Amino acid sequence: MGYPKLVIVGGGFGGLNLIKSLKKAKFDILLIDKTNHHLFQPLLYEVATAAISPGEIAVPLREIVRTNQHVTVIMGEVAHVDKNLKQLTLGNGDKISYDFLVLAVGSRHSYFGNDQWEEFAPGLKTINDAINIREKILVSFEKAERMDSPQEAAKYLNFVIIGGGPTGVEMAGAIAEIAHRALFKNFRRIKPEKTKIYLLEAFDRILPPYPEKLSRRAQIDLEELGVTVVTGKKVVDVTSEGVYVEGGFYPSKNVIWAAGNQASPLLKTLNVPLDRAGRVIVEKDLTIPGHPEIFVIGDAASFIDDKGKPLPGIAPTAIQMGKYVGKVLKKGNQPPFHYFDKGYMATIGKLRAVAVVGKLQMSGFFAWAAWCFIHILYLIGFRNRFAVLTEWFYCLLTGERGVRVIYHSIDKELPKKE
Amino acid sequence: MGYPKLVIVGGGFGGLNLIKSLKKAKFDILLIDKTNHHLFQPLLYEVATAAISPGEIAVPLREIVRTNQHVTVIMGEVAHVDKNLKQLTLGNGDKISYDFLVLAVGSRHSYFGNDQWEEFAPGLKTINDAINIREKILVSFEKAERMDSPQEAAKYLNFVIIGGGPTGVEMAGAIAEIAHRALFKNFRRIKPEKTKIYLLEAFDRILPPYPEKLSRRAQIDLEELGVTVVTGKKVVDVTSEGVYVEGGFYPSKNVIWAAGNQASPLLKTLNVPLDRAGRVIVEKDLTIPGHPEIFVIGDAASFIDDKGKPLPGIAPTAIQMGKYVGKVLKKGNQPPFHYFDKGYMATIGKLRAVAVVGKLQMSGFFAWAAWCFIHILYLIGFRNRFAVLTEWFYCLLTGERGVRVIYHSIDKELPKKE
Repeated sequence: MGYPKLVIVGGGFGGLNLIKSLKKAKFDILLIDKTNHHLFQPLLYEVATAAISPGEIAVPLREIVRTNQHVTVIMGEVAHVDKNLKQLTLGNGDKISYDFLVLAVGSRHSYFGNDQWEEFAPGLKTINDAINIREKILVSFEKAERMDSPQEAAKYLNFVIIGGGPTGVEMAGAIAEIAHRALFKNFRRIKPEKTKIYLLEAFDRILPPYPEKLSRRAQIDLEELGVTVVTGKKVVDVTSEGVYVEGGFYPSKNVIWAAGNQASPLLKTLNVPLDRAGRVIVEKDLTIPGHPEIFVIGDAASFIDDKGKPLPGIAPTAIQMGKYVGKVLKKGNQPPFHYFDKGYMATIGKLRAVAVVGKLQMSGFFAWAAWCFIHILYLIGFRNRFAVLTEWFYCLLTGERGVRVIYHSIDKELPKKE
Repeated sequence: MGYPKLVIVGGGFGGLNLIKSLKKAKFDILLIDKTNHHLFQPLLYEVATAAISPGEIAVPLREIVRTNQHVTVIMGEVAHVDKNLKQLTLGNGDKISYDFLVLAVGSRHSYFGNDQWEEFAPGLKTINDAINIREKILVSFEKAERMDSPQEAAKYLNFVIIGGGPTGVEMAGAIAEIAHRALFKNFRRIKPEKTKIYLLEAFDRILPPYPEKLSRRAQIDLEELGVTVVTGKKVVDVTSEGVYVEGGFYPSKNVIWAAGNQASPLLKTLNVPLDRAGRVIVEKDLTIPGHPEIFVIGDAASFIDDKGKPLPGIAPTAIQMGKYVGKVLKKGNQPPFHYFDKGYMATIGKLRAVAVVGKLQMSGFFAWAAWCFIHILYLIGFRNRFAVLTEWFYCLLTGERGVRVIYHSIDKELPKKE
């Protein structure tokens, strides 16, 4: 086409907002993503807990940029960046050259060097993760119902969530609701309402980045839902039988990991300084040192703000970074990137949340209503907004979790007899 | 409880209608199913073609019988029936005894002894099957877009559906719509509207059990949607490269099997006469010879009607059989089972169908409207009825296929370079 070639890796909040801000700009854009969809990650825990279907928070990237003829989408995994050749290599060996490159590749959960824990404590970042966790949760109740004794059943009715950040808090609240409400009267031998749910946090309170008052409030709300909150205990091992903490053991067949993130390993191929979580330490204009044509944004970037603190790895950060890079590409040099803090929030079960908006701290129903409003507003695409709304409304009215489909059979996983 | 113990294997149309007809009857009922859900199979092709989400046609069995305290549900696979001990063995070795047994175990697709074809030509019976096929269809377009030449891309843009029965006809119509309508303008390098779709049928016309006039009409409708209908050609081999028929070859990376059914292998353990499709040849009261306490219903049963023809393997047959067995169990001896033929129907793409209702033959939009009405009516559970309705309505208005989520990445499956 003759226009400069802009390659964007990752169709998350950052990548898509960049594309949006470049509408009609003179770039030949190639968007590469490992998956075929944009994922609305803030609601992923709702898929993992059978409240909504995967399709409701995943919109095909092609559909989003359908009418934008200068954007091409390919599904693929970038394996390597060659800064000097200005070339990417994909997983199958395909080479792609660029004039400008934006890496918006996000992060995965990380086990702090204990990758063997993943088998027993899956994390939650992709649709596949969510389906795995959903499968694990639902299957546990099924297995418990097939056990010969209450003692054996109890092993399947203990849930441990590791990590008391927003994801951990949201998962714990949602599992409490499945067990204590949605599955009520569904079983004849076990009582799902006797399920034990533990939320483990190494720090001395849950939601560490939140003001102390909200952390306390979140803990009280969770305890009212039947979650046992354990703070100040570091996990030392996870096995098929449960979770070992300093001086204690929580037996469980259902462990979920919500404790740490690690940026994409692709970033290592840039050969630039990374922070402890593997994120690229970016310049004030979100580029990498010595390469004004390469930008890193969102969860993949480590940007230190005026107060000397790194920006949080949440959607608003990625969105603002995407828009900023759009401005730089369209108009040339810009003042340094500045993050506008709109706040942060986490739901606790149904109808409750905690939120910080500027100096305002909210909790309870009001915070939850604000949470709903903002999340629906941000959901991309009419279809999903509408479908999620109807599901939620139905879920609220009935307390049911409608998407309780198990894909695999369980006999081979049960203790063998004879 | 002291009530006789009735074990029902399979929570499909037959099993559930039996349970419904036994409401308040004095039986202690155990329902065993391989999955945790009742599946509305007539709409499964809509999941396979990304129009609706799996959760919309799969309702947890526990939820359906929640308020019915004398019904217990367990998720499990029955491996063996011991008629003399009146005992079942599950996959893990669990033993379950019964006073009455109803086998409503359905059927799987069958490859007529060529099981090696399954890898290249998946069939459509379960939610997992539907997700596999959806994945295959969507991934094909993604792979085509990544090919270097139109020749290579073309391999991924050929679809072959084997079997011109209702499932094959419905799949062919739906794939034509994805390719020619839903994906329009979604790609930059390939043109999905150039996708070739072949429907192969060994018999001399599609929809063999239908009146000839409707078969012809269905063929014309499919051809208008861009499907090439090939009749009178028997498939002799299926490989990773395509489908071989007598005197011909259809190159394709996308083959779907809709050609034959085989009843569950569990039925062999009964040691009673089976028909060619592995179905139990049942007595006039749906029991097996010499065992008035064992019933076989639905797709698992071969019942010869007054005209000497076996009943069709469709939902109404299973429903009527389930209700009949309920009557026998509640009231004792009954006149022989009689199938009331309400008709049969198949959709062809959007807004068209063919249907036979008694002596009435319908086609076109009117038949489609009747099809919609009946299917929504039969969908069990308000939630699904409502959700499917909204999805359909949206789909109709926009021509989009909303549930186009691919779960796995594709790089490793692409031709390797360098």
